[in-house]
Amino acid sequence: MPGISHRGEQMPPSPIRKLVPYAEAAKKRGIKVFHLNIGQPDIVTPPSVMDAVRHTDMKVLEYSHSAGFESYRKKLCEYYQRFGIELTPQQIIVTTGGSEAILFAMMACLDPGDEIIIPEPFYANYNGFAVASQVTIKPISSSIEDGFKLPPIEDFEKNITDRTKAIMICNPNNPTGYLYSAEEMDVLKNICLKYDLFLFSDEAYREFCYDGHQHISAMNLEGLDQHVILMDTISKRYSACGGRIGAFVTKNVAVYEAAMKFAQARLSPPSFAQIAGEAAVDLPADYFDEIKAEYLKRRDLLVSRLNKIPGVLCPNPGGAFYAMAKLPVANAEDFCRWLLESFSYQGQTVMMAPASGFYSTPGLGKDEVRFAYVLNTDDINQAMDCLEKALETYNGQPA
Amino acid sequence: MPGISHRGEQMPPSPIRKLVPYAEAAKKRGIKVFHLNIGQPDIVTPPSVMDAVRHTDMKVLEYSHSAGFESYRKKLCEYYQRFGIELTPQQIIVTTGGSEAILFAMMACLDPGDEIIIPEPFYANYNGFAVASQVTIKPISSSIEDGFKLPPIEDFEKNITDRTKAIMICNPNNPTGYLYSAEEMDVLKNICLKYDLFLFSDEAYREFCYDGHQHISAMNLEGLDQHVILMDTISKRYSACGGRIGAFVTKNVAVYEAAMKFAQARLSPPSFAQIAGEAAVDLPADYFDEIKAEYLKRRDLLVSRLNKIPGVLCPNPGGAFYAMAKLPVANAEDFCRWLLESFSYQGQTVMMAPASGFYSTPGLGKDEVRFAYVLNTDDINQAMDCLEKALETYNGQPA
Repeated sequence: MPGISHRGEQMPPSPIRKLVPYAEAAKKRGIKVFHLNIGQPDIVTPPSVMDAVRHTDMKVLEYSHSAGFESYRKKLCEYYQRFGIELTPQQIIVTTGGSEAILFAMMACLDPGDEIIIPEPFYANYNGFAVASQVTIKPISSSIEDGFKLPPIEDFEKNITDRTKAIMICNPNNPTGYLYSAEEMDVLKNICLKYDLFLFSDEAYREFCYDGHQHISAMNLEGLDQHVILMDTISKRYSACGGRIGAFVTKNVAVYEAAMKFAQARLSPPSFAQIAGEAAVDLPADYFDEIKAEYLKRRDLLVSRLNKIPGVLCPNPGGAFYAMAKLPVANAEDFCRWLLESFSYQGQTVMMAPASGFYSTPGLGKDEVRFAYVLNTDDINQAMDCLEKALETYNGQPA
Repeated sequence: MPGISHRGEQMPPSPIRKLVPYAEAAKKRGIKVFHLNIGQPDIVTPPSVMDAVRHTDMKVLEYSHSAGFESYRKKLCEYYQRFGIELTPQQIIVTTGGSEAILFAMMACLDPGDEIIIPEPFYANYNGFAVASQVTIKPISSSIEDGFKLPPIEDFEKNITDRTKAIMICNPNNPTGYLYSAEEMDVLKNICLKYDLFLFSDEAYREFCYDGHQHISAMNLEGLDQHVILMDTISKRYSACGGRIGAFVTKNVAVYEAAMKFAQARLSPPSFAQIAGEAAVDLPADYFDEIKAEYLKRRDLLVSRLNKIPGVLCPNPGGAFYAMAKLPVANAEDFCRWLLESFSYQGQTVMMAPASGFYSTPGLGKDEVRFAYVLNTDDINQAMDCLEKALETYNGQPA
């Protein structure tokens, strides 16, 4: 029997999905599981966005242009202009989710064995795309004690080799919720210019910034036009994860043309969800106000509840809808599994994502978990009740 | 300015799209262009399939399971059963088009530098996926004079090295329309068993077989269960190219699990078009009769008109909706461009795909073109009038 490839073996399993069988078993036992483990928003997809698809009069479900419908790319230019980002439709490739934008960036800019520096913890699927494209991730660590701020410039510099081709960030960050400041973005810009590196910027959560802080897009960094690849998605922005529509954006013509060849090989992005994406740009200007207010309420509740639990540390995240917390346990993955396998409080338990899967350096983040605050405040309160009781019980247990 | 990757440079541009700017220019000059160059069917997507999407009551456009909706995978089992292929939902990964199934197969089974044998001419985008996954394609040539039948077993054997991991076929074939016989499928089976190779089988055109010939799926080959990966798509079957829904199918558990990790990294296939795909399985049993009758009429017309033109050779294809023809010109690409740039007959001209892009061996197929008979018979007749006149004019020109 022929065997699978080494990269098939190396491919990391999703850290979020590992616990899924335990959650399913818990549900079979009649236990309600609060899912704080995955970034699937509970927010309804805007009805006008769904309706645009429902009302399509398309007769033949044709291939779109490999870069996406021109009408949609024009709309996206309008969208980005709201953030002071001036683009033409020829600088945008509509992708199949943000995922494909990441893969195109790695493939178009890096060869097997080339290196990309990413502050950790980072979105775990970056590992998968790195294995797929045979690129090496060089992690530099940010820490929960520092609130996950950008690691010092020396940490970047000591990891730069002649194979280093890019720095990648996610801003606001998944999994930490950290929002990079103007000063930090400037540091990144200067490193990229000094060492002639690409800056891959995953801005899936652009709109979700709190406490009056402003999001600084990598596309807004003056003088960095030829270095920046913006990787975007409508998934979280409009609660449209299943659409699988994202964008690969760059002003670097050579990079754009190289990425277009990868886009042409896979023919086109999905047509239905492009219609959805196009309609989404026309949502009223205040659309995000309500959503952001809701997420903010949830964040405030989650963070304050967490920090009240003895031994728990949860820095206040400035954006996205994630928070990381350090728990008073030796191994958060064991604890998360135990929560699903052996614990319930009032017939309920909570599912979180063990953070070690978001770190690339072995051993880091073992006592941390990621929360996605995608549940309403009632549910968050009940989930926190569970967690509080669970930690009491767990730590009272003989080791 | 940081530069693109070598693989970004190596990535082949689409042979079909190369001539697009010339076609656009022709249209701007008021010339009607008959598009026989691209496999975008003109057939209407079944209204019930479009309606399934229009009537969705989905409130949150969520991620589906990374392998696709379970309900859809169950439906697909029903679909495959009609062809004597017994599957479980756990042997199917719903992919983003057939394209993603090809990429998953290459990534899960081959490492950079590993080799895959493919009879040429072959679907040009295989080259793109090979560059993306850094896999080496070893072409073995089939010829228009032999009607593109499977190359002799010796040609396979002399190309097998210790890096050879798979043989890939497309059946019925794009670009040749060739339908492999039971005997040829048996030859392939025996080679795969003898050398322990995977058989990647692209069966996008399964339903489109003519003249009473039966399609033999690689999944029907007894004893080859652990070797076969079926790569499928709804694009051509239901004229649903823009949906971007395909399938990766295998009974090999290790391969399935490896591919699932790639599937999880990209989260999920598009939700809307999965709804379309699920509805398509319920189309009445006679759905393909009318479509096939239409394609058959077109094929017969195209092939007979082509073979009546002096110096043109067009083998009668047994399936799909493509035909290859040898033209009495030295360089078919020059001729195709000339047709768009410098020729018109009664205000009309014709666009074909130069075949050299479908061959991997340099120099082969230079005087061949591929036709996609995706136009109605009236248009095909007029297109053939153009081609006939064009060849007279072109060959009457001083060299």
